[in-house]
Order: sequence, then structure tokens, then C-alpha cells
Amino acid sequence: MISLHYVPFQEFQRIKNLKCTPIQRSQIFATYCRINTLYMIKRAGSGHIGSSFSSLDIVSWLFTNELQLNHQKDPKISADIYFSSKGHDVPGLYATLLGLGFIEFDLLHSLRRLDGLPGHPDVSIPFMETNTGPLGMGISKAKGMAAANRLQGKTSQIYVLTGDGELQEGQFWESLPSAVNKRLGELTVIVDHNKIQSDTWVTKVSDLGNIEKKFESFGWHVDRCDGHNLEAFSSALQKFKGITDRPKILIADTIKGKGISFMEHTSMKPEDQLYRFHSGAPDDDIYNRGVKELTELANRQLNNTGAEPLKLETKDQPIRTLPTNPERLVTAYSKALVEQAERNPKLVVLDADLLLDCGLIPFQERFSDRFFECGIAEQDMVSQAGGMALKGLLPVVHSFACFLSTRPNEQIYNNATEKTKVIYVGSLAGLLPSAPGHSHQSVRDISVLSAIPRMILVEPCNEAEVALALDFCLNRTSESCYLRLVSIPCEIPYRLPQKYDLELGKGIPLTEGNDAILFGYGPILLSQAYQASMILADRHRIGLKVINLPWLNRIDEVWLKKIITNYKYIFTLDNHYIFGGQGQLISSLLCDIDASIPVKKFGLTDIPLCGQNDEVLKAHRLDAESLAQNIFQTMKEKVL
Amino acid sequence: MISLHYVPFQEFQRIKNLKCTPIQRSQIFATYCRINTLYMIKRAGSGHIGSSFSSLDIVSWLFTNELQLNHQKDPKISADIYFSSKGHDVPGLYATLLGLGFIEFDLLHSLRRLDGLPGHPDVSIPFMETNTGPLGMGISKAKGMAAANRLQGKTSQIYVLTGDGELQEGQFWESLPSAVNKRLGELTVIVDHNKIQSDTWVTKVSDLGNIEKKFESFGWHVDRCDGHNLEAFSSALQKFKGITDRPKILIADTIKGKGISFMEHTSMKPEDQLYRFHSGAPDDDIYNRGVKELTELANRQLNNTGAEPLKLETKDQPIRTLPTNPERLVTAYSKALVEQAERNPKLVVLDADLLLDCGLIPFQERFSDRFFECGIAEQDMVSQAGGMALKGLLPVVHSFACFLSTRPNEQIYNNATEKTKVIYVGSLAGLLPSAPGHSHQSVRDISVLSAIPRMILVEPCNEAEVALALDFCLNRTSESCYLRLVSIPCEIPYRLPQKYDLELGKGIPLTEGNDAILFGYGPILLSQAYQASMILADRHRIGLKVINLPWLNRIDEVWLKKIITNYKYIFTLDNHYIFGGQGQLISSLLCDIDASIPVKKFGLTDIPLCGQNDEVLKAHRLDAESLAQNIFQTMKEKVL
Repeated sequence: MISLHYVPFQEFQRIKNLKCTPIQRSQIFATYCRINTLYMIKRAGSGHIGSSFSSLDIVSWLFTNELQLNHQKDPKISADIYFSSKGHDVPGLYATLLGLGFIEFDLLHSLRRLDGLPGHPDVSIPFMETNTGPLGMGISKAKGMAAANRLQGKTSQIYVLTGDGELQEGQFWESLPSAVNKRLGELTVIVDHNKIQSDTWVTKVSDLGNIEKKFESFGWHVDRCDGHNLEAFSSALQKFKGITDRPKILIADTIKGKGISFMEHTSMKPEDQLYRFHSGAPDDDIYNRGVKELTELANRQLNNTGAEPLKLETKDQPIRTLPTNPERLVTAYSKALVEQAERNPKLVVLDADLLLDCGLIPFQERFSDRFFECGIAEQDMVSQAGGMALKGLLPVVHSFACFLSTRPNEQIYNNATEKTKVIYVGSLAGLLPSAPGHSHQSVRDISVLSAIPRMILVEPCNEAEVALALDFCLNRTSESCYLRLVSIPCEIPYRLPQKYDLELGKGIPLTEGNDAILFGYGPILLSQAYQASMILADRHRIGLKVINLPWLNRIDEVWLKKIITNYKYIFTLDNHYIFGGQGQLISSLLCDIDASIPVKKFGLTDIPLCGQNDEVLKAHRLDAESLAQNIFQTMKEKVL
Repeated sequence: MISLHYVPFQEFQRIKNLKCTPIQRSQIFATYCRINTLYMIKRAGSGHIGSSFSSLDIVSWLFTNELQLNHQKDPKISADIYFSSKGHDVPGLYATLLGLGFIEFDLLHSLRRLDGLPGHPDVSIPFMETNTGPLGMGISKAKGMAAANRLQGKTSQIYVLTGDGELQEGQFWESLPSAVNKRLGELTVIVDHNKIQSDTWVTKVSDLGNIEKKFESFGWHVDRCDGHNLEAFSSALQKFKGITDRPKILIADTIKGKGISFMEHTSMKPEDQLYRFHSGAPDDDIYNRGVKELTELANRQLNNTGAEPLKLETKDQPIRTLPTNPERLVTAYSKALVEQAERNPKLVVLDADLLLDCGLIPFQERFSDRFFECGIAEQDMVSQAGGMALKGLLPVVHSFACFLSTRPNEQIYNNATEKTKVIYVGSLAGLLPSAPGHSHQSVRDISVLSAIPRMILVEPCNEAEVALALDFCLNRTSESCYLRLVSIPCEIPYRLPQKYDLELGKGIPLTEGNDAILFGYGPILLSQAYQASMILADRHRIGLKVINLPWLNRIDEVWLKKIITNYKYIFTLDNHYIFGGQGQLISSLLCDIDASIPVKKFGLTDIPLCGQNDEVLKAHRLDAESLAQNIFQTMKEKVL
């Protein structure tokens, strides 16, 4: 077990009264916040260190010296507004608000936990002005707030922090002109220009060119400064105050991972392909070295003001049981994709800055000429794929399911109307991981894609089925496909038969049982259903047949009719909103085939919770125990 | 009856051999094409004259003098590619291709007809390189084509025409950087800079500022010329040929409606708020004056080369029966919106360049400070609305349903996760009008929005219900709402009771009948169902009870169970894909309430056809007669 260290609230109180300049105080404050950010992320097991650290000097200064805040939440007060458009730097923002006492300090210990601090900003938390996490929406949101303020006679300043990778999103540019046309002088955008996006250098992913010139050409007032130099930063903001007839943009040159030497992107070696501290918690050694560096820095900063050294407090890292022998579907996909590409020279791969997460590194290394990194530009990526398909290629398009299914939704449909074949692969599908929160939990993708004609949606339930599903998509249908992939490592209690192969619209039993039948898909919930089946058998002698039905919008009616024969109850289980999910499709088909068996649908009915995987699964009553109880109760009332 | 005039194919053949310069020939060709464009649009009853005319000199020149085309469709040939990203200028492109014999000339007479020339480009028609109509996708598509060409060793030039209003779309800017980073010298973008977008001046809607400077700041090579001066245009293209290391953009200054004096935007008077010839067919008088002007122009141009005057051919305008006493839901909405706004000062309205079509002119005139014209920037609009809602306003957001539901789909969900209240109003919903084609036929909007938590989808069935539905959305629920509006004028055979009011999840019978029950919504298909009910009663003594169920994602189960009691068969009728529509929801609920009644769902199963409303309704077997036959057959087989 490792001990984790944090700066307690009284330390933040203490530095309020230090004899020092505002800049010195803000620097100490920011170092404290970095220690607490590292603590929160290590404790949570995930979170974005790199961009929390690159933005922390800016955020600390704004909250300690610039913003006029409205603690009373009095709607009549013209309070200033700050939010981060990228949103994944929120651990740094939380640390700031915790240090100032604006958020209950105890929440320090519950980043990304149920009832704790969500993985991305959510307006349920004080001073979170808007929900961010999906990129590029910030300036639009701010313009709406400015319009509301003006109508209501308020004169607040609005500060929006953006990433630099985020500038690849079309909405960012779409949002610029009207801020100029409406002369939104109350709007200040700060670009946290840390040069590194999710995977690697912005210039490598999709070079933005001369951004100063771009912003100027859009009519914004532009300035640039070192985002870690508070003299420069505060004086740039001071100069901005004189400009009231135009929106302003400050390019703050920052260092990703700033504060811990070996996390700073400037320490990357020429041979380093990927930046390592964008997301995810550090291991124990890195954590210890990091906290040591930061503590030493804090003590030097304190010492410069003549103050006593920092007194950290300590908590044990909670023990987390990890799956011992998990299956990794994305890794299996990665391998299958390369194998397919060996056989098909027309296969090309497109990615939207999620190279690592989507398992594309082996493909990129093997087939660099057939790999297209599109940056955080999903609409552009999908329409490019459409163009490639029209000219004879077989494009396979990647992003997280939450983004891929919705941001370029019209573009996917446009491709579909051309009757070409495009494969879309959405990873990070479903409720889990639940730590990043609702912007990343893709529980609506089936509904937004299902109705597209000539598109088959399929989700494999284990590594073996991944290769079969990809093969089906590429070689066994003329239709476009959406391959839905769970990203978390899963301990999977079932195996598929040796000779198993996919048949469109048909599923396969994972357990036997004569009383009720449950249809589901994907590794997470089928594993829970499998265990529920064991519980029901042991505890209640109820036989629950669990069916892996990987098809999300095609079900073979003859097969369905046959497999439900003699069952008293049907359950469906969606790693998705019940609305628009597989369960709704199954129950609607039962009418078509004149079957009269009661159906109960399990799945999500409201915005999914943020937290650790097991606690969220349980909170939504989708864990094995809850499912077993629910199935037992339902059957007891209805048919037993 | 009016006679319509067109330039026959032999006239196009004749000018091939005229003794004149290529520019003179192209000018005559373009005038011919303008006559035929006007003919096609007048004959079709709709279409975009303004931008067809502004781009026709460019398009004619490209096809007669620049492009290396691949008539054999030999995949090995490096043929040049041209397409229009905006796509609604396609009548002009069709006229060009018809004049060159690249499309069977007889199709001249069937613009926007079943099996004719679609309202927006579709790859089923020769030389239509990609499906456009939704805006901003063109450069992305072209980049995909360029990538495919390069991989396959081809060296084609790719020309993409864009609008200027189109530059408001984020995807346009999103698509620019990688073309530079990949040095796509084979890509030439021509901006048809006609200064007018759907409603009015681009500068008035959302001023683009200095576009030359913008494109340059993105690293593109930029030039500018008069788009009607072929010397200037061709010499600009000539200069572009020397630049092979960068993509190129040519800003072609053009005149919307160019060629017919009173259609030219330069003839607009200072007091003219709206440009009148963006879409829609001209009336008889305007048509006659227009064709006269163009014919005189052609004859002057011919005379300059010493050639004989133009010999037009003539066809009678087909007689079209219009509804004699139609209801107009958008007009009713327009009135209801102003009434609601009088009562609620927090109500604000956002629009995406469809002021006229969405019925917003009365609101804009009455409440100019609460009206926000966002331009063709749906994502920005929706996120702005989110910001307004967070700061205490009640935003009502407008666009065509096809765009509003899909382009900003992630933004709508992001707003929903903030649990604020935003009203979305999607007009032009459903299969009809079918003349614009699949990019505009919104038959997927229910599916892409239904699963969003805390959002109610409602579609009124006549003018009276529009006001009730808007009142419900604004005042009778705390949830966000999507108000789905049919835009075509409808002859409606039913009336709602005097004291009718909406009850969430419940419907109301429009006809009585004891044999089968049909659920539907909206004026178009409920009118067909009503008539089908009459046919079934007269012809087969089958009593079909037609229910208006305006709720698209909420159905009261108790009400449903009660109303279907004693019926032998349930029919559902979706002005939408069956997938994700109301019928699927109803049939899935029947299982939940243990009802065992067979259900048959009517609606769309594949990409909707383009054509006149009546012929398309019939082709999809959704007209009264087809419905009656289908219902009779189904019942005969199953229950009679």
C-alpha cells in the first residue's frame, strides 16, 4: 500500500497571510494545487495531469486575483465567469476551488467517485459554469452567457480557457465570427497552448499553423505571453481591460505537465512518440518522485517569503482489486485490424487523435501510408472517409463512441446516402469507464445510428468475437458497419464455442436455463448477466438462459421466435439507454412475430453517474447481484 | 396553363461549331443553361435559381474548357473531379451536363421528379461526385478523394465550389488545415461569393469579415476575381496550375441571380429585407419576363458571332392541383411564438439562417433584442442556447429538422446534461416536401433525439395543435422539448375537438372504428390515414380508428392499454424511418403492458425518394389508397 500526500486546507489558509507579493502567493498556491491535483488523480486512478498542470498558474491567478465572484449565487449580481472549454483540466480547477474553500474540502478525496467530483465539469458542482468535456463548445456557451447577461443588464467578464488541440474542432472556428460582430468585449479567451494533445505534438497531429494570424484574421484582439509567467500574464489581462469593443484572445504558451520536471513536455526526448502524462494516474514510483519535486518547490517558494515549510497530510491509497486475467477488446481489435489490412490493400484507417486509445499504433507502424491522422476533427474525418470510399477505398474510421456517433452524425448519414461502404469503430462504448463522466460515457450511440439505412451495428462480447466482428464488417457484408467496442479490461467468465462464427441477426447462449431468457451484448453486462444467472440458479433454482446477441439493429425474427419458445419471461440488458437500445428493438419485434411473453428491459433511464466502475454499475443496478435480485422479484410477481 | 421554353439539345450542338472564341462560346453556353435552369425550376415548382445563376459562368467554363473528364468511368483513368459543396446550385450543373450530353437530355423535364434529377446532388446521377446539400462537407470529401487518388497513383485535379454563407459552417474551417499540411496542390476551391445566403446578405446574417485574410492565415494560396468575367476566371485558374505545393482557393465575386436583371442581388433596393430568388419557382409573370431577358441576351451573344438566333422549344407547364384550403403549421407556429413571447420576457429565439422558412419574421420584428440570428452554424447556435439557458433565459432554437437534429447532436446532449431547459423547433420535418431530396427529408430526427433524457418530442397534427404544443413545451413541462413541424401546406380532413388540450403521453381519436386501430402523428400522414379509414369503411366495412398521438417518445401506458382494448390489430404510421420511430416505441411498450395484439408498422425502411409530394408518398406506399390496401390485406390474412 502506498501513502498519498495532500496539502490540507489550513496550509491554504496560512498562505493567505504570508508577507509576499500577490504573484509569490499565487505561485505557492499553484504549487499546492499541483500537489493536490496529483493526489486526486493518483487516488482516483485516472485523470488528466498534463493539462491540469499546464493551466494551473493561469487558473490560480484568475481565481486569486482577477475574478469578481458571486458566492451568494444572487442572480442579480454581475459576477465574473470562468470555465474551461476543454474541461479535462478540471482536477486543477477543483484543486483551486478546494484551496479557496469554494468547494467542501473533503471532496478532495473523492475525485471521479460517486457523489464526488466528476471526471469532467458538471454544473452540479459549485463554480462549474457549464458542462464541458466534449471539445470546441466553450466560446459558443460563453457567447450565450454574454447575451443573457446583456439582456439582463449585467456586466460580467467572461473568461474561457481552451486547449490548443481543441482548436482543431470546427465549432471553435464557427463560434468566432459572431463574437466580433456582436462586439463582445466582455469575452476573454485564453488558449492553454501547451503544444501537446491527447497523443502527441499538435504540430504532428494536425498542425495549426500561425494561430495568432488566424485569430487576427477573424477580427479578434490577440496577445501572447508565457502562461507560467504571472507578471506577463497579469499584465496581458490588464491591457485587455482597455479593449472593450472586441473579444480578446490570449495565447498563453505553457508547458504540458508543468511543475514536475519529468512530466514537462519539454523533457520529451526526440525519440519519444507519445506524451505519457495526458491522462491516467501515475504509477507509485512516478507519484512519489512527483510529489517530492513539488514539495521541494513549495518549500523553496515558502522559504523565499521567510515562511515555514509545508506540512503535508497523508492518506493511504485505497486498495483497488484489478482483474487478474482480463480480456482487452481494443488490443484484440488492434491485432485483427493489422491482419485484415495485410490481406486488403484498399483498407485505410482514419483516427481523430486517439491513436493509442483506439489501438491504432500497430496499424500506423505497419501501414503508415494507409493511416490518416485527422486530429480532433470528427466531422472532417468522417467526410474524408466518405470521399475515400467514393474513390474505391475501404475506410475504417475511429474515435471514442461518444464523439464518433454524435459530432459527425449528419456526416455519417450523408455517407450512407451515397451507398458506399465505411466502417466506423467506436471505442470507450457504454457506461464504463464511468470515471470520465457523462460526456465520455457513450450510452446513446446505438440510438443515434440504428436508423441509418444500410448500416449494421455490432458489438463483440470478448476478444475472440472482436476478430469475427471485424471480419464480418469488412468481408461479409456490403453494408456500412458500426463496430462498438468496450475499452475497459474485463474479467470474462464465459467462453464462446471453438467453432463459433457470427450469423447476422442471431445470438448464442452463454448459459443454459429453462425459466427465463436474457438478451444482451458486450463483455461488461454479459459478464454481470452470466454471474446473475449463477446466483439465480444457486439461490432460487431459477434457470436463466443468457444470450449473447451482438447485433444491435438487426435481429433475425425466425431465430428469435425459436429461441424464446417455452420461456416464461424475457429480459433485455442494454449497456445504453433503454430508449433506442437493443431491448427496445427486441420487444418491438416480439409484436411483429405475435409472441406474447412479458419483457423487462434493463439499462439506463437517466444521465449516467460518474464514479468507479463497480460503484456506478451497482448504483444503476446493473451489477450481477442487482440483476439477480431484480430478475427474481420480477419473476416472483409475474410468473412464479 | 403557361408554356415553358427550353433550349433543345441541337442548339447546344450548334454552338460547338460556331466561329468564336472559347469565352464567347462559354458565355452563350451559360446563357442557354440559364434558360434551361429556369425552365427546370419553373417546371419542378421549386429549386434554387439564385445560386445556380451566380455559379453558372464558372461551371460552364470548367466543363467546357478545363476539366479532363472520364466518360468511360474507367477506374484507372486520372479524371478531374468537380462538385459543388453547397449542392443547391445543382440545377445549373444539371443544365451544363445536359447541354454537353453527359446526362440524357430527356431528364431536363424531370427535375425533382421520381426517377428524375434529384433536388440536391446524388451519386446515382452521372458526374455527381458526391452527395451534397448539407453544407460544409465539400473540402473534407475532396481531401478524401485526393488521398484515394494519391494511394492509387492518380493525378487528378479536384475542383470544389462552395457558397459564401456556407463558410459559416464549422466543418469548412475544420477541413482547411490538413489540406495544407498534406500539401494538396491538386485541390482548388472556388468560393461562389454571391454575398447573399438563404435569407439575406451574408454580412447581415453573420459577417465573415475579410475572407482573403482568413484563408491566407490558414496557409492556403488565395486569389480573387470576378466570377462572371471568364478572362479573369480562366487566367486565375491558369496561374493556379503553377502552384502545386499548396491547396488553392479562388474567391469568385459573383452576383446572385446573375443573368436576369431583376433577379440579380445588385438590383435589391435598400429597403428590401430579403432576397427573393434563393429558392422556389418564379410565378408565371416573373418566369416569362426572365426567359424573355435571357433569350434576348442569347440572341445578342449569338449575333456577335454572326450566328442565327436561338430556337427555343416549348412544353406546357404540367397542371398541379394545389390544396384549396390548406393549414400552414409554420404560420400557426409563428403566431403562437409571438403570443408566448409577449407573456414571457425570458423567451429568446435563435435561428440558423432560416428566418423565413421557420416563421420567425414576426418575432424578429416584434422582439429584435431577443432574436439571435446565428447564421449557418447550428452547433454554435445550440451551444449558445445552452449558455443562455444556464444564465436564466428560455431559448427557442430553430432550423430545419434534418440539420437541427443531427449537426449539433452532441451539443444538444451536452445541454441536456446540464438539466437546463431549451426548446428545439425543427421545421421541414418528415418525408415531404420530397423535392429537395434526402439531405433535407428529416426522417431520422426522432431516432437521434428520443433517447436524450429529460427531452420530450412532440409533433402537432394541425394549426390548432401547434399553439397547444408550443404552450406545453414552454409552460407545462420542466423538461427540454423538441417540437417537430411539418412545413408543407396541408389539406387536413379532420378537426380536433373545441375543448381539446394536450395530455402528455396520450392521444385523441380522429375517426371511430371497432376493428383496427392506427397510431400516427403530424398532418401529412394522419390525413392519409383518415382518408384510408374512409376507404376501408366504404369498401370493406372495416372500422379503423385513427389516433392522433403527438408524443414521439413518451406514451402513457395506462392510456395505451385502455385504448387498444378489444381491437384485433394495431397499425402504426411513422413520417420517419420505422426504425427509431413512434411505431417501434408503441410496439415495444405493448410487451411491457403484456398486451398481445399483432402490430404492423408503416413508415420508411430505406433512404427516401426525391420527387413530387404525391408521387413520393405513393412510391413509399404511405398514401391513403396504399395504406387502405395494405391494412385490408394484413387484416384479411391475419384476423378477418
